[in-house]
Amino acid sequence: MKKTLSQLAQHVGGKVKGNAEVEITAVATLENAAATNITFLSNPKYTNAVQTTKAGAIIVGRELDSPKPLLIAKDPYYAFAQIVVLLHGHRPHKNTGLSPKAFISDKAKLGDNCNVYDSATICDNAVIGDNAVIYPGAFVGPNVTIGKNCILYPNAVIYDGCKLGDNVIINANATIGKDGYGYATHEGIHHKIPQIGSVIIEDDVEIGANCCIQRGTLDDTVVGQGCKMGDLSNVGHGAKIGAHCLIVGQVGIAGSTTIGHHCVIGGQVGIVGHIKIGNYVSIGAQAGVINDVPDGKKIVGAPAIDALKAKRAYSMIESLPEIGKSIRRIEKQLEDGK
Amino acid sequence: MKKTLSQLAQHVGGKVKGNAEVEITAVATLENAAATNITFLSNPKYTNAVQTTKAGAIIVGRELDSPKPLLIAKDPYYAFAQIVVLLHGHRPHKNTGLSPKAFISDKAKLGDNCNVYDSATICDNAVIGDNAVIYPGAFVGPNVTIGKNCILYPNAVIYDGCKLGDNVIINANATIGKDGYGYATHEGIHHKIPQIGSVIIEDDVEIGANCCIQRGTLDDTVVGQGCKMGDLSNVGHGAKIGAHCLIVGQVGIAGSTTIGHHCVIGGQVGIVGHIKIGNYVSIGAQAGVINDVPDGKKIVGAPAIDALKAKRAYSMIESLPEIGKSIRRIEKQLEDGK
Amino acid sequence: MKKTLSQLAQHVGGKVKGNAEVEITAVATLENAAATNITFLSNPKYTNAVQTTKAGAIIVGRELDSPKPLLIAKDPYYAFAQIVVLLHGHRPHKNTGLSPKAFISDKAKLGDNCNVYDSATICDNAVIGDNAVIYPGAFVGPNVTIGKNCILYPNAVIYDGCKLGDNVIINANATIGKDGYGYATHEGIHHKIPQIGSVIIEDDVEIGANCCIQRGTLDDTVVGQGCKMGDLSNVGHGAKIGAHCLIVGQVGIAGSTTIGHHCVIGGQVGIVGHIKIGNYVSIGAQAGVINDVPDGKKIVGAPAIDALKAKRAYSMIESLPEIGKSIRRIEKQLEDGK
Repeated sequence: MKKTLSQLAQHVGGKVKGNAEVEITAVATLENAAATNITFLSNPKYTNAVQTTKAGAIIVGRELDSPKPLLIAKDPYYAFAQIVVLLHGHRPHKNTGLSPKAFISDKAKLGDNCNVYDSATICDNAVIGDNAVIYPGAFVGPNVTIGKNCILYPNAVIYDGCKLGDNVIINANATIGKDGYGYATHEGIHHKIPQIGSVIIEDDVEIGANCCIQRGTLDDTVVGQGCKMGDLSNVGHGAKIGAHCLIVGQVGIAGSTTIGHHCVIGGQVGIVGHIKIGNYVSIGAQAGVINDVPDGKKIVGAPAIDALKAKRAYSMIESLPEIGKSIRRIEKQLEDGK
Repeated sequence: MKKTLSQLAQHVGGKVKGNAEVEITAVATLENAAATNITFLSNPKYTNAVQTTKAGAIIVGRELDSPKPLLIAKDPYYAFAQIVVLLHGHRPHKNTGLSPKAFISDKAKLGDNCNVYDSATICDNAVIGDNAVIYPGAFVGPNVTIGKNCILYPNAVIYDGCKLGDNVIINANATIGKDGYGYATHEGIHHKIPQIGSVIIEDDVEIGANCCIQRGTLDDTVVGQGCKMGDLSNVGHGAKIGAHCLIVGQVGIAGSTTIGHHCVIGGQVGIVGHIKIGNYVSIGAQAGVINDVPDGKKIVGAPAIDALKAKRAYSMIESLPEIGKSIRRIEKQLEDGK
Repeated sequence: MKKTLSQLAQHVGGKVKGNAEVEITAVATLENAAATNITFLSNPKYTNAVQTTKAGAIIVGRELDSPKPLLIAKDPYYAFAQIVVLLHGHRPHKNTGLSPKAFISDKAKLGDNCNVYDSATICDNAVIGDNAVIYPGAFVGPNVTIGKNCILYPNAVIYDGCKLGDNVIINANATIGKDGYGYATHEGIHHKIPQIGSVIIEDDVEIGANCCIQRGTLDDTVVGQGCKMGDLSNVGHGAKIGAHCLIVGQVGIAGSTTIGHHCVIGGQVGIVGHIKIGNYVSIGAQAGVINDVPDGKKIVGAPAIDALKAKRAYSMIESLPEIGKSIRRIEKQLEDGK
């Protein structure tokens, strides 16, 4: 695909400074871009690279001195995203229909235009919406419901009875609906409690590779609309995650915890069970969250504290030996002064 | 299934206060329960909900004021578990025998009444006990031994020569017996050391989804009887975990470490290699354990310290800037006072 | 296989002290070794076991008093590794060629002597070198390139267009080339950005079970030659890992971070995005790395600081309540003294 810079600007609602007729075929980094590429200044610290990039044009947030044509957009990162979609598109999926080498139950119901590839399994009474793409080795358990336009990548596993909305993407080797971690310990033996809740994944969610989302004990585990979850994250039984949260990789959210909408949860964060996180909460990477968090709060650290305080406080751990010495010096001085 | 409260009380060895003839068909939460449901007061902070729940009956640990009939049990959580099993049962598995679309070696031996579903693989000389359920995409390597009544969920992988006892559950996408992380570095190159040990998983163990348990270098990695492991946990080569441990999600246990019986290990805990953890040890979530731990000890934090001390100590990190200020103020005061 | 101690010493370039004609058939631990086994003294704290082991011979780094014959090698751990390879070999793979029950595209190209087992998938235009071993359930996406002598264990997934060098091992349930975690948030909605970069895994790399390595947004994610990655680790989009790094289990490396060669990264380490780690850097387990790290530096802790300082500093967290008390006592003393 080939577009002029003018066409790209129109597509994203931006304006051009410089030659609007330069032809663009692809998006590339400032460093690697060639004359037919458009690139993107994401971070002020790379501003110098604007002078040396070989790109044909640069997406920016506001006008700046540049030897190359600029596409100025109000939300330049979103403009960049729209242009990547326009020029490169999302991953295509081969259109083969239902493979005779897939294992599809006679009792499953599939919508129109589904692709189910070799060796995928669709169990009894599964209901799958239009345009689904189910990759090899993916497993759709009995009584699972999947909406329209969903993609299950290879070896993704959906246990029985889980419900996925529309436009859901489950990446490879993710596990949805495995039993919650629930045992009743009696006389030193741990007795498994059947987990009769399910998992509900709402519309427009993407679940990363090798994530595990447990089904609830009595009620359902919920991942809210538009959430995007990185790889290797773990959601405990009965947790409820609100809409449009960003949950980066290797996060652990324990059972029965409630998270509001539009939260951002960094990598390797751990959140204990049975607490309530508000809306628009931001949790820094590796934080350990053990208490309720109000709306809009930013927290960092393990244990997690206010982000503004945390940077200074945690960086002072390094000074603890000095602090100890100061105290001993002071005590000696007071002792000597008596 | 329908049971009177009287029958449920008899089943769990508890007693009834109120109408013993109320009919119960299901278990539900205090909040969601309907008139034919029994519910469970697990946490004193929900005691108020007893007054408003619509449940037909409530499982409790001791008598209390309630507008609804009570089932009073000595160990109410265990009673709850028994009633969930009675009314709802564990997950049923379709009874189809050995699928002709499974890949079962002629040299494998399977017990009676096994279900091996489409696209599961059973390699040469694997020996599988009665009543096994092997889901699609599960892989049972050569010379693997599996006891009676085991379940391998979809895409679980058991490498060659591992041994599973009876009543073992391996959840989806878990990996058992992958080579231990062992390399000899010589002149800057890491040379792989064949890992000739195996993995032994004893009776009644459940392994969470996407867990990885490495085989030993020379001797075996062992997960003891009755252990229950959450999702995404990692056990290093040659680690030995005693019986009846609870190991929650995303835990890392490095190679050659020994853990006693009845330990409880919280989410995201890391335990270094070559140490010895006693029996009945409790390790709080996200702890970093770098030293031996004696029997019965409770530890928290990274680095892990005594749990009683830890709560106060770690919460004081937030006060470090204040501590620094106090010291500078004192030093100035002493300076000025000279 | 049976070798005399003399033959083993010759194989590793070491020398014998004691009976060089003792016959050895296997390698075992100091504790479990029998008379036909050779064992290995890896750790000075086990030196006493040299007196009691029943092994036929012991590999050591320098001469010591021993009732058993010694194989003295300059690099004893490497000698041990070589002897394990000699006596036990690496895992054999059944030689069955291309299974008719594998799903191999007509448009894929496979080298000589490949084994592709039942239910493995090889998509269009994949190119696979000689001697590949592709286990059941493994998925090789469209346009993937794989070098010579590679092994893909069961249910490993390689997304479209990734490139693996020679002698690469991908363990079970690992996911290579899943889309990078990239969304442009606009008016509260997270819009997926196509990730048009790929993943390049260079020669001699081993990737642990259930690892996830994301493809890059615009350029490629790279795992350098000879790297060895433990289980359940996560590499973000566009990260570049230099040659011969050891990356232990459950590590998280965020997007666009660059790591030099010969680094050692401990278990559960988290590294933020867009930073630069030098060569020969050592990062202790559970560290949180948020800044650039120069060559040769050893760091520990979260936040990560110099390893020499860290041990003392982090262990002083336990003393914070005492420090607080000391300060209050001093302040009172000064107050009283006024």
